[in-house]
Amino acid sequence: MLKMKVQDMTIEYTTTPKEKPDLSTLVFGKTFTDHMFVMDYEEGKGWHDARIVPYGDMTISPAAMVFHYGQTVFEGLKAYKNEAGEITLFRPDENMKRLNASNDRLCMPHVDGEFVIDAMKKLIAIEKDWVPAKAGMALYVRPVMFATEAYLGVAPSKKYRFLILLSPVGAYYKEGINPVKIAVEGEYVRAVKGGTGAAKTAGNYASSLKAQEVAEANGYSQVLWLDGREHKYIEEVGAMNVFFKINGEIVTPALNGSILPGITRKSVVQLLTHWGENVVERQLSIDELIEAANNGQLEEAFGTGTAAVISPIGELFYNGQKIVVNEGEIGTLAQKVYDTITGIQFGTVEDPFDWRVQVATT
Amino acid sequence: MLKMKVQDMTIEYTTTPKEKPDLSTLVFGKTFTDHMFVMDYEEGKGWHDARIVPYGDMTISPAAMVFHYGQTVFEGLKAYKNEAGEITLFRPDENMKRLNASNDRLCMPHVDGEFVIDAMKKLIAIEKDWVPAKAGMALYVRPVMFATEAYLGVAPSKKYRFLILLSPVGAYYKEGINPVKIAVEGEYVRAVKGGTGAAKTAGNYASSLKAQEVAEANGYSQVLWLDGREHKYIEEVGAMNVFFKINGEIVTPALNGSILPGITRKSVVQLLTHWGENVVERQLSIDELIEAANNGQLEEAFGTGTAAVISPIGELFYNGQKIVVNEGEIGTLAQKVYDTITGIQFGTVEDPFDWRVQVATT
Ligand SMILES: Cc1ncc(COP(=O)(O)O)c(C=O)c1O
Ligand SMILES: Cc1ncc(COP(=O)(O)O)c(C=O)c1O
Repeated sequence: MLKMKVQDMTIEYTTTPKEKPDLSTLVFGKTFTDHMFVMDYEEGKGWHDARIVPYGDMTISPAAMVFHYGQTVFEGLKAYKNEAGEITLFRPDENMKRLNASNDRLCMPHVDGEFVIDAMKKLIAIEKDWVPAKAGMALYVRPVMFATEAYLGVAPSKKYRFLILLSPVGAYYKEGINPVKIAVEGEYVRAVKGGTGAAKTAGNYASSLKAQEVAEANGYSQVLWLDGREHKYIEEVGAMNVFFKINGEIVTPALNGSILPGITRKSVVQLLTHWGENVVERQLSIDELIEAANNGQLEEAFGTGTAAVISPIGELFYNGQKIVVNEGEIGTLAQKVYDTITGIQFGTVEDPFDWRVQVATT
Repeated sequence: MLKMKVQDMTIEYTTTPKEKPDLSTLVFGKTFTDHMFVMDYEEGKGWHDARIVPYGDMTISPAAMVFHYGQTVFEGLKAYKNEAGEITLFRPDENMKRLNASNDRLCMPHVDGEFVIDAMKKLIAIEKDWVPAKAGMALYVRPVMFATEAYLGVAPSKKYRFLILLSPVGAYYKEGINPVKIAVEGEYVRAVKGGTGAAKTAGNYASSLKAQEVAEANGYSQVLWLDGREHKYIEEVGAMNVFFKINGEIVTPALNGSILPGITRKSVVQLLTHWGENVVERQLSIDELIEAANNGQLEEAFGTGTAAVISPIGELFYNGQKIVVNEGEIGTLAQKVYDTITGIQFGTVEDPFDWRVQVATT
């Protein structure tokens, strides 16, 4: 199969551009830009018909396998515009690696990561006026790929569609960084070793909604998942990995096959290591965490993910017990990590790791 | 919200009816009838716009939540036509109960089961010439429901679409009943307690493909799943529940929250009980099964599901060991259960349980 080139891609511009939204009141994930990237896959033919078209509804068979057997993977990253009008992406190659790892688990074909990044850059360049030029704001980039063959047999689909959607996002923290309250989930399970937990696939999110609903009804904003085998080891939060500073050591659960390998997580580990901090990826039981908290050794807790970058955890609820972390305030470590990563993303802090990838200049 | 009535449903007939397929060469799940049932849901408004329309592609947003977060549930049942031209369904009320149980787990709204069955009957009556009038053949009925709100937040969708698709199926067993070879899966996991295993939702099938691929490459047609916690207890096969006759006792794994509660399974248990057989639903470890096989006490093994009704298991492969069951032949019990249930479905055997539901007469 031929290597796809971004120069060969067809581009159809919209004739009815939308008005840009008011970023101060914008709700995440409901507004999309004027264009999207599309390509299709067919067994024997490979990926083909790469194109940028006006954002809008598409036509699909009601028997498309995605509706029935759920072969679908996605990614999430952000494009940032600094005050000089420079637009960059944060580690998009990592998203491509994870996308193809997800594809392997779901028996879906690989994409050519280099080509997809080129297509993504081209799409973002076309939509450059949609990228907010303010620290904390960004253009969210959602690559998504799903099975389109019209077939009710349980087998890998022979056809797929790949899309990139763009959605502008306002500031995650509107009034300073607010620590969140998290409920440790004792009944429901997100994933288990041997399952799909390490893949970014739709089913993991569908299965998480019930516990999230229960947590919210109890006044908690998100769920901290325990492992599916023993309900004992800490895994991750809804859409974030987690870090705990316990008696000077910074612990994050090791990638064991059921946790999503977050790119923010990886970046935080690299950064902490670079700073000479004592950071370890290992198994961490909820009992050890509770004990540390009771002994006054739990210094900080925070989640990491593309959406918030760093989300300090101010309170944990487990088995009827409330654990307040760092008096419900953001810790100095979380603050430093947040400032550094968002600074690198926004281009105001030096980038010793070459994490920023140039997209365009407006 | 108003109760929907099938009389209020709009019907748009196709102007280009398709040719009926040759049932002797038909591949399952690739041919659909001329019409489909559709209705839509919106929070605050409930289900609305129930309609029968020509089968064909539909229009949907690329941001529809089903593609990203996988809220989707489905069902599968069959309509049978006997020699008198009478069309019946097999226990459709059970499918509606399971559909709504799946909806609960996935945070999706209930459907009105009675209305859906009425709509299903109406649709099948319109497509009555698509129902093969031959024992072993049927019209497969696929209700499916998925999230349609265009939103990238991880939360239950506020909009859904519900469809019923119909697909004619030829004989499952073309040349007598062939026992299948099954590989016991030691690495991958389909579901775990606290997860979505008991729901008929897309993610369970997407996650099962990898193990299925490995099994097929090794010459096995399907996978027997072990539990996600200890990799020790028998759960079910790809799209079937399982029964083992061990030393006179008929054992099927108890419904523990991670197994799909099959309607064929339930019917087989009822039938065996009715016959005065010693049938038990309990935990069954793979070690106990292997030991029984080695001691010559494993008399029969078979799967149960809508597709095959009964699928005898002739060989099991576990940890490098091949276990041949009943010399690779169908057992007398499996044969008797198969003959009785297919006889009830086709209307040639008395139906003491009122399992058959009248649809139409041609
Ligand atoms: C389940 C889950 N865990 C963790 C993360 C964090 O990953 P990343 O840092 O790559 O955004 C995400 C992604 O947003 C997620 O969905
Ligand atoms: C995972 C799974 N187990 C068991 C079954 C059997 O269920 P039923 O007898 O209702 O067809 C099915 C359905 O086809 C299934 O998909």
